[in-house]
Amino acid sequence: MSDLEKFFSDCTQIVDARLDKLVPTNETAPARLYDAVRWSVFAGGKRFRPALVLAVGTAFGCQEEKLLNAAAAVEMIHTYSLIHDDLPAMDDDDLRRGRATCHVKFDEATAILAGDILHTLAFQAIVNDKNLPAETRVKLISELANAAARMVDGQQLDLDGEGKKIALEDLEKIHRNKTGAMISASARSGAIIAEASGAELKAVTSYASKLGLLFQITDDLLDVTQTTEILGKTAGKDKRAEKATYPALYGIEETRKLAEKVHAEAINELKTIEIPTVVLCEIADFILERKS
Amino acid sequence: MSDLEKFFSDCTQIVDARLDKLVPTNETAPARLYDAVRWSVFAGGKRFRPALVLAVGTAFGCQEEKLLNAAAAVEMIHTYSLIHDDLPAMDDDDLRRGRATCHVKFDEATAILAGDILHTLAFQAIVNDKNLPAETRVKLISELANAAARMVDGQQLDLDGEGKKIALEDLEKIHRNKTGAMISASARSGAIIAEASGAELKAVTSYASKLGLLFQITDDLLDVTQTTEILGKTAGKDKRAEKATYPALYGIEETRKLAEKVHAEAINELKTIEIPTVVLCEIADFILERKS
Repeated sequence: MSDLEKFFSDCTQIVDARLDKLVPTNETAPARLYDAVRWSVFAGGKRFRPALVLAVGTAFGCQEEKLLNAAAAVEMIHTYSLIHDDLPAMDDDDLRRGRATCHVKFDEATAILAGDILHTLAFQAIVNDKNLPAETRVKLISELANAAARMVDGQQLDLDGEGKKIALEDLEKIHRNKTGAMISASARSGAIIAEASGAELKAVTSYASKLGLLFQITDDLLDVTQTTEILGKTAGKDKRAEKATYPALYGIEETRKLAEKVHAEAINELKTIEIPTVVLCEIADFILERKS
Repeated sequence: MSDLEKFFSDCTQIVDARLDKLVPTNETAPARLYDAVRWSVFAGGKRFRPALVLAVGTAFGCQEEKLLNAAAAVEMIHTYSLIHDDLPAMDDDDLRRGRATCHVKFDEATAILAGDILHTLAFQAIVNDKNLPAETRVKLISELANAAARMVDGQQLDLDGEGKKIALEDLEKIHRNKTGAMISASARSGAIIAEASGAELKAVTSYASKLGLLFQITDDLLDVTQTTEILGKTAGKDKRAEKATYPALYGIEETRKLAEKVHAEAINELKTIEIPTVVLCEIADFILERKS
């Protein structure tokens, strides 16, 4: 196992333990709702966003304990968005992280409510975090709310664009909102909790912004180059939905070159800050090379 | 116009003005999303919950300006829940506040996203409220998140109970969660912003808890005694859905007596605090006598 694999594996373990503490069990009525929530939260997600909170926060020397509720919160927002995006009225997907989506396993009403309660629980996780001063909790909630709002804007823009020819500029706007905002908020949350300086926060923001773009480019690539089995979600659906994607606009080879360019830019953004950036660079490598 | 009618009319005006400031317009892309949000937010709702924030807060001598974002936030959470509850997979309702529901006027995907963004905007309204210290914002967000989570629990319990015989105890549990929690949070938010004492907050909580119960009892009564035209939403739907209601359990006359008893209890809870309670008593009267 490489150092980064070990980092991700450790992250998954501690973030899952925290999520298990923060998400009510099915012993808290109504059982069906929390069964559905836990079905989606503990579906073997990569925990990329929480790992980013932890990687940035600990790079600035912050204790792990202070980062965990924020890490769990970004994953809860991410999972709520996946549950709602998979609904029949939205992307209508049956498969997520290798198993039935929430509305398929349970039902549509329960899936809508499972997303809704996760959305609330995310804010609750931060606001009730006794490890952090009120001022920090306010900053984090503001950060999370801004990103969550942009994520919904992005999903609407994405739906509006289906079947239409979309310019690169509009495509990037969709991704900056839909995926990039929450990735940036994750990295920034780690820096905010660690009380990074303004200049440091700026560098982290630029790095995360490139990382978000890289994530989307590789996501588009995987959709056309991988199988459903490896992805754990339906492959090739962007093409069927006639979505604007980087491979559709540029072709696969040019998109790979673009990914490498953005990867280099992400790493470059870290050069202005004086903290150990090994893990942050490895995360960028990992996204460039990911297979699922 | 009675004093209370004037109070409600004034509340609606200032709360609507604040909502108009806090909810992006359709000039902020994506237009369809914010058209949908505004369709539901400005649908002529009674603004009962925000009025309660203002009534309690001003009774404790708090400036109106400090209460307005919290007042707008409770209405946003309420409206998000209505949009999602009306969806085909949930209560499947075409009519709300006298006009087409969000998913009928727009589409299901947009309605899901409109509810989602309102949910986020509510937390954003409080966290970004520069009129309040960070400590107060944290208390308010905690209050709102707890209530919003209980509201979703209550909706799930309500769906789980459709077509089943439900005991009074379970019925009250559904309502305490689904309706009561947000009504209590509204009243408590007013008291929290006004820096009410522990004893005062306790009295307000007891009053609001009775008020919530009264609200539900009269809601059940209106569903069986009023027309769709007067209600502005589909009448008689509880019976068709075989929902457990007070009239179904007790009959109409006994339910009216129960409403009067709960009304008296609500008023009684206010006797322990030394603030002007005229408006709060009138609000209880208003709920007892409401026709829609």
